[in-house]
Parts: sequence; C-alpha cells; structure tokens
Amino acid sequence: MIGQLTAPPPLPAGGLRVVALGGLGEIGRNMAVLEFDGRLLVIDCGVLFPEAEQPGVDLILPDFSVVEDRLDDVEAVVLTHGHEDHIGAVPYLLRLRADIPLVGSRFTLALVAAKLREHRIVPELVEVAAGGTHRAGPFDLEFVCVNHSIPDALAVAVHTPAGTLVHTGDFKMDQLPLDGKLTDLGAFARLGAAGIDLLLADSTNAEVPGFVTSERSIGPVLDSVFAGAEQRLIVSSFASHVHRIQQVLDQAAKHGRRVALVGRSMVRNMGVAQELGLLHVPPGLLVPLDEATAMPPEQVVLVSTGSQGEPLSALGRMAAGTHAHVTITPGDTVVLASSLVPGNETAVYRVINGLARLGATVVHKETARVHVSGHAPAGELRLLLQVARPRHLLPVHGEWRHLRAHAAVAAEAGLAPEQVLLAEDGVVVDLVDGVASVVGAVPIGNVYVDGLNVGDVGEESLQARRILGDEGFVALTVVVEPATGTVVAPVHLSSRGFSDDPEAFAPALALVEEALRTTLEQGPVDSHRLAQVVRRTVGKWVSDTYRRRPMIIPTVLEV
Amino acid sequence: MIGQLTAPPPLPAGGLRVVALGGLGEIGRNMAVLEFDGRLLVIDCGVLFPEAEQPGVDLILPDFSVVEDRLDDVEAVVLTHGHEDHIGAVPYLLRLRADIPLVGSRFTLALVAAKLREHRIVPELVEVAAGGTHRAGPFDLEFVCVNHSIPDALAVAVHTPAGTLVHTGDFKMDQLPLDGKLTDLGAFARLGAAGIDLLLADSTNAEVPGFVTSERSIGPVLDSVFAGAEQRLIVSSFASHVHRIQQVLDQAAKHGRRVALVGRSMVRNMGVAQELGLLHVPPGLLVPLDEATAMPPEQVVLVSTGSQGEPLSALGRMAAGTHAHVTITPGDTVVLASSLVPGNETAVYRVINGLARLGATVVHKETARVHVSGHAPAGELRLLLQVARPRHLLPVHGEWRHLRAHAAVAAEAGLAPEQVLLAEDGVVVDLVDGVASVVGAVPIGNVYVDGLNVGDVGEESLQARRILGDEGFVALTVVVEPATGTVVAPVHLSSRGFSDDPEAFAPALALVEEALRTTLEQGPVDSHRLAQVVRRTVGKWVSDTYRRRPMIIPTVLEV
Repeated sequence: MIGQLTAPPPLPAGGLRVVALGGLGEIGRNMAVLEFDGRLLVIDCGVLFPEAEQPGVDLILPDFSVVEDRLDDVEAVVLTHGHEDHIGAVPYLLRLRADIPLVGSRFTLALVAAKLREHRIVPELVEVAAGGTHRAGPFDLEFVCVNHSIPDALAVAVHTPAGTLVHTGDFKMDQLPLDGKLTDLGAFARLGAAGIDLLLADSTNAEVPGFVTSERSIGPVLDSVFAGAEQRLIVSSFASHVHRIQQVLDQAAKHGRRVALVGRSMVRNMGVAQELGLLHVPPGLLVPLDEATAMPPEQVVLVSTGSQGEPLSALGRMAAGTHAHVTITPGDTVVLASSLVPGNETAVYRVINGLARLGATVVHKETARVHVSGHAPAGELRLLLQVARPRHLLPVHGEWRHLRAHAAVAAEAGLAPEQVLLAEDGVVVDLVDGVASVVGAVPIGNVYVDGLNVGDVGEESLQARRILGDEGFVALTVVVEPATGTVVAPVHLSSRGFSDDPEAFAPALALVEEALRTTLEQGPVDSHRLAQVVRRTVGKWVSDTYRRRPMIIPTVLEV
Repeated sequence: MIGQLTAPPPLPAGGLRVVALGGLGEIGRNMAVLEFDGRLLVIDCGVLFPEAEQPGVDLILPDFSVVEDRLDDVEAVVLTHGHEDHIGAVPYLLRLRADIPLVGSRFTLALVAAKLREHRIVPELVEVAAGGTHRAGPFDLEFVCVNHSIPDALAVAVHTPAGTLVHTGDFKMDQLPLDGKLTDLGAFARLGAAGIDLLLADSTNAEVPGFVTSERSIGPVLDSVFAGAEQRLIVSSFASHVHRIQQVLDQAAKHGRRVALVGRSMVRNMGVAQELGLLHVPPGLLVPLDEATAMPPEQVVLVSTGSQGEPLSALGRMAAGTHAHVTITPGDTVVLASSLVPGNETAVYRVINGLARLGATVVHKETARVHVSGHAPAGELRLLLQVARPRHLLPVHGEWRHLRAHAAVAAEAGLAPEQVLLAEDGVVVDLVDGVASVVGAVPIGNVYVDGLNVGDVGEESLQARRILGDEGFVALTVVVEPATGTVVAPVHLSSRGFSDDPEAFAPALALVEEALRTTLEQGPVDSHRLAQVVRRTVGKWVSDTYRRRPMIIPTVLEV
C-alpha cells in the first residue's frame, strides 16, 4: 500500500530504476529520474503552483534530494515540451549544476533558454526533433511526435539494456491539428511491436470519456464571436498556446481588425514562435498597444495574458478597472479562450464578473466552445494502450482521481492488475528482467520558492502563516528587572489581524498584570515561566471571550 | 452607472421602494427590503460564505444598516425557503429585535426554528403555504409554489397600492418533481395578467442554456451505481436536499441495504423532514452508525454530509483517514450526489483524491449524472418572462455574469432595455406610478462573523491577516531609558511565518543596532522616531535580501 513503502533496495545490476519525483498525485512539477548502471536521466523538471494551504509561496519545486548528491551522474534532462509544469524548475536544478545538457525540441529549448536568461544561466542545449535520436550515456533516446496544446511536443522512448521505457509527455490525438503534426501512432505501434517494457502516460483527462474535439473547431466559434462584436475585442489565452493565438490572428485578418499583444509573456512567446516559423502573422496585422488603443475599437483585437484570473495580469487589471492603457467600456467583448485550471476558479470568475460589471460581454468556455483540452481523454488513452501494448503502465501526470481512472482504462484495454503500477511522488519502480514493480519509496518534501529564497520557508513557517492569516496575533511584552524580580514597565500589548477594535484586548491586559503580580508574589521565577503565565492567561481569556485562537506571543525582556 | 450612484431621494408618497441588501453581484446573503408608506418588509435574510480574501471569517452577513435604526417599522421577514443563503442571517437580525414575525412554509420555519434554538431565540412564526395569503402591514402577501432543491419553496407576490412586486425566490421548473409540486406557472400567469410591476427573479443559471433535467433522472444513475457496488456505499449530499436523499433511501431499499445517516445536520434535517411527511422512510431501513459499521459492508449505505469538501465533515474525515468510526477500504464506492459550489473546487477535489488514494471508487457529477441543479437555466427564465410578462425585471441571486446573462434572456423575451434594472447590493429601486427605476444607492459593507463576535473584524484586520498569512511578521522591541536617551537592553527580535531558518534575521539585528546608535548620537529623539528607524532599516534589508515584505512591527518601550 502507498504510504507504507520503505526505502528501496539497491538497484540490481542490469536493472532500470524510475523514481517519479513529481506529478504523481498532483498536477504539476513533473519530473522523473531514470537510473541505469549508475547513470541518471531526468525527464522534465517542472514547477507546481501553490494552493491556499501554502500561503505566500511563489512556486513549489520537485524535491531534488535524489539527484543533488549525484549531480555528476546526470547525463541529461529531457524536456518533453515547454509548459511551466515541465520546464519551470530547470533554473533551480541548473543552479546546482549549470552544465547538465538540456535535450528538447527547438521551441521547447527556446522557451527554457528565455527563462534561463532571466536567471543568468547559459545552458548547454541539445536540440532534437520528432523521429530523431540522441544518446545520453547508457540511455538511447528516440523522440516521437505528439500533439498537445503547445507546438513541438515530444514523447520519448528510452532504450536501455534493461528494456525500453516510453514516456508520452503530455499528449492528445487531435486528428486535425493546425500544424498537421499528429501524434505518431505509427511510431508507438512500432515501439510496441519491438516491446515497451514500461509506459509512462499522461493521466490528466482519464476521467473524461471519449476523444478530444479538434483545436480547429474553435475557429468557427471565434468567427461568430468576431462577427457579432461591435466594439473592441479582447481575447485572452495561455501565452504558450501558439495555435489558439494563430486562430485569433486568422479571424482578426478575416474581420479586418488589427492585433496588439498585451502582457510580457505573450509578447515574448509569440515573438519566439514567429521567429521559429510556428506562428504565421500576415504583414501589418500586429500593431503596438498604444497604436491599438488609439484606433476605433471595432478595428482592434487585443490578445492578452490573464486567462487564469491572475489579478496583476493585463486582463486582471482591465477587469478591476486599473489597467494603465485599456479601459473596458459597455459593448466590448472579452473572450477567455482558455482552460480553467483547477484552483483558479474563484480568480477567473472574479475577472469575468469584473468585466461583466463594466459592461463587457464575456465569452468563456462555459458559455461557448472557445477551448479544447490539450490532454487525451479515456478513449485516446485506451487507443494508445491498444496500439502500444506496453508490458507495464505507470500512469503519470495526475491527481489520484486521474491515476485511478487511468488504471480503470488500462483494465478495459486488457492489462492485468499487475501490469498497472499505481504510484505517487517518490515511489521507486524497478524494471528487472522485463518485470516492472514497485520496490520502495524515497521521502519527498515540498521545496518552496518564496521571493529570492529556495527552501527556507517550510512547514513550520506555513503553519504559522495559516494561523496568523486566519486569526492574527497578539504580542505581549513584559520588562522585568532580574535582580529585584519586579516588572518595571506596564505590559505592552500589540495586536494585528485580530480585531478592528483597538480596545479588543483591554480587559485582558488587567488580567495579565494581575496574573504576573500573583506569580511574582510567590517568589522568584524565570522569564520562561513568566511568558507561560502570560500565554495561558491571554489564551484562556480570548477563547472564552471570542471563541478564537490568535497566535499569542509573550516576550519577557530583562533590563 | 453602477458605482457612481448617490444617496436616494426620499421615497415619493404612494411609491414602493426596494433595496437589495445582498445577493446582487454575489451568490449569498440574499436579502431585500421593501418599503411602503413608512413600513418595511424583508424578503429572505441569508449568509454569504467567505472567500480566500476574507481569511478566518466564519460568515458574512447582509449589512443591516438600512433597517437597524428602523426595526420597529419591520412588519415581517418572509423566508422563501430554508437554504443558508436565505435564512442563515435570521438569528443575527433577531438579535436586534427578537419578535419580528418570520413568515414561511412549514419546512422552512422548522429549519429556521432549529437554527434559532442554537442561538436561544424563540421566534414568532407565521406559517403559510403555496396558494395562501398573509397581510403584513400595508403588504398583501400571496404565496406561489416553486420547485427547488429543497422542499416547500415559495415565491411571493407582494401587493401594495403602489403596485405588485413578485419575488421568485430560488426556483426551477422540474416537470417531474418527486413530490409532484410543480412551479405554479398558472399562478405566475394569473399574476401577470393582473399586472406584475416588478419581478425579482433568480439569475443563478442564466448563463446555462435550455431546461433542467429532472431530479428524477438521478434515480436510474444511482440504481446502476448501487448495482455495481460490491462493498460499502457512501453517498454524500447537502443535508437539506430531501428529495436527493429520498432517492438514495429508495435505492437502498431496492438493493437490500440498510442506511445510516452520518453528520449532525444530516441527522437533524432528515428527522425534521420525516416528521413533516416530506421524507418517506421504509420501516427498519435506518440504522444507527455503530450498527451500520458492524454490518457486512455490502449491506450498508452511509448517507453523509461533506459534499462540499469541508475538511471536518464526516466525508472529509473519511478521505483523510481520520474518521473515528468509518475507514475507507479498497472496493468501497463513494458518490458525491451534489453540486460543486464555486470556490469549493479545491476542497472537493482534495476529498475525492483522498478517497481515490485509499482505494475507493468515487462517482461525482463530472463522471456520472448524480446531480442536477436547483436553479432555472435560461430556457426556463425566458419561459417565466413569457408567462408572467412583468413590466420590469430586477435580476437577483447572481454574480455579475449571471445578472448580465439574465438581462440578455430578458431582451430575447422582448423586454426593452428600460424594463430591465441591473443592480448590485445597495442599489435602490423605486416603483412610482407604475414605473420602476434606479434612484440611488446606500453604502453596503461586509459584516463579518468571526467566533462569537459580529462586526469587530473589518477590512483593517483582514488586510493585516492577508499580509501576515502571506509573509509572516518580524517584531523588534527596543527598550530605552527616556531620561538618558539610551538603549538599555539588546534589541529583541521575534518572527513567525517568515522563514524556518531561526537565523533568517540575524544580519538585520546588527544593522538595527547600528542605525539606532547613529540616530541617538545625533541627539534626543522620541520613541516614534526610533520605531521609524527600526522599521525602515529592517524593511529595506528584508526587501533587498529576500524580495519579501513581511509585516514589520517595531516597539519602543520606555523604562
């Protein structure tokens, strides 16, 4: 059973080990470490975005413990595609060793290189393409075209003497992708025929029945929105979703509107995509934002970041009425051509409501088909298993509900229970003599990035933040003269986040002074004991009076 | 424009005024105040549940300012149905004046009475029924049967010499309700023929096209889940959704399983429903929980609270493996036969993932049709408008996106723009000479309940909580002797929630002491100035060093 696993035994000679450091039991910080003959290969290195229980945290990294003492053993990091949950933690890994080769497609490498520039890291890049191969130490890599919500995504087959592992990366099977690059089922079939010992496959949409709707189906929907828009159009999407943006540009051209890109990552990524020939921009279509805002609104489309409700994004500011250059006016049309990432619902609806309040018509995925997912639903997962016929499946990239659903799909596709390995972060899978099995687990922690620092904020700080954030604190300072054992100044009380009433603790102060007097009358006591008296007196009083539990911080100063 | 409204003028003689205190621009704390001839009528008095931006808050109440100086003018509170967002704030209103008559259906009054008992308030109850009437001062009330996700829901028509206002309450038009109580379209048609001057109608599902699926359609889905369940079944739903629970009981009886109710509100409400003849329980079907846990799992259904992911609810504890009596084992089936209230997504998915991790098969509304909404979608709203033909519509019970969508539905149904009043909390609508229009707005605040207190936590405390919760704090205490102007003890530093590293601020301490020394060397300074020096020194250092902004709390004590 998960949770009762012990440390794994040494890897048998000739065996292949897989440790999934992230992405199993969660959506995010995808990272798998493969080991063969003492050498390591990393597949993906992404970040996880914090939830409400991790207040103030900027990012969560995979726990690098497994590799940080063995950095010289790492042959390469393979990046399947350029999404943050697959490349976001690369700068933090490369802080530990900057010259680990990064292997990926051209667009993926362009995005990771831009990110690394911000961290002042010059990486060693190894560009590969679908159908290509690369050797990294004992790992023979073969890359397979997959279709996803970002161009240039790859699956990777890792051939070792222990057997062949295939990692799908994130994928779906859009049969009419904008760039014509289909998920290469022929390659999966060929790999399957030769023998896939262990398949790691994307579980995100395993709960969703059927097959994806084509990205191309969004074009006609946008067409009708554009046709009906009488004033300014604003379309928001992920800044890496090149094909979605392409369709917006196509509709703008068709409907005689110019386009301004809004938001730093949108401008940067679309620049990269255009340079690499992935985004096709008709001459003269793009205009700078200041030019666009000066044009008649019915001639303009703004393509903006902020589709996840980020309050400081371009769209977030427009919805709040605080954008420096763009003011929403009644009659504007805003399209959120994007997913709604779980956890972001409240923020996204706040933006939609803000825009609606200002008079905009807001079109989003719940009111029109302006988004399709980038992940294979159950029908496609089943199809992949039928084509690839792996000896073992390790569902990855999913919360527990997705991993279980993926296992159910595998059962339908004819895999026996022992062929499906259900695992969460840290679980160690060994492939030995053609049999893959769970052999143990390594402890996995949450590594938090907060501001400039990595790892100094841990569970202790988060626990304090949760209490402070829910209840506030009251700090009481007592100044004593150790020689005489007397309190030499009035007890000082300071409170934040507890009440707007400045007198909220006034009655407690008298109780504290009384308790201190009583205690000191009984003879000499040390500071620690006095602090305890203060804490207990205030704690009981506040609980009785308010039924609340603020953090209580007693300080006894000796002068 | 909303947001630029000024205080309303005096209500003209013979006019009817409506002030919506809550529920417009938000889902929750529904409350409308009607005024005619100096007398007031309240319709609903509910609570709003806090969002992440209101940390630590238990409930948000409507702002009673408009009525609290005029409590003796209040003729009655009409309660349309028994959901928390319609009755939850009644105890707080009755704390101000306990003998305001509460007018509602039998089940609604039973639920509100149970709630008031906990607050030790004995209310004055006026039971009414669909088709019945009641006179409250100048307000002639007429009650209309509506169908919703709780039994015994009513719409209310308020006849006054100024005209007729109709409030739908929450409703939908299920054509096959379990109890046969249809939304009374005939009554709406009759009222419409006589003339509805102002219709207040539920906007919750105005973005959703079409018509509701019948509650009855859930039965066959439950049937197949029950048929496929090999071990224990646990079904979670709202504790007030009598018809949903009825269907679970029916399936349990059919499949030869006994039922135990789990969770305080589930036990209480189903007891009330059974007593009033709203829930039909076959003899011997219900067993106590301890009996159920001792029975073979395939003979049991647990009906539990916790469908919204509440961590301390019965289901929340089962998912976390901390329930005192129920342990989830592989093969158990859990059904979340409930909506997913916006804002609860993360909590609900955490529960689903926890259950999945423990080996349960989890069925929820995204994987099977085990839930239908209680609110009329666009097709039904359009139908209501066609039947009732109101002179004016005030969309209520919705966020801005819902209110705008409702206005769009009204336009489709032939209402002219001036017939549709878009308003948010506090907006004042007067009906004078048959014309309803927005005449101004009253300021509306958020009244927070936290522990035992109402209103002492305000924006100042919440702002502090948000900073403390995200960044923690650092408190520095300096003890000075005012006579000599010298610092008489080492600066004391205390920090929580900033870093797990106890030495995180060590370098700053030396800087502070240095800054204090420099300041004091320049001559005598007061405590306020010293505190400023401390704050600035630490603030700059922490920003430069960590790129974070903890709360900085300098204290200068004089001894």
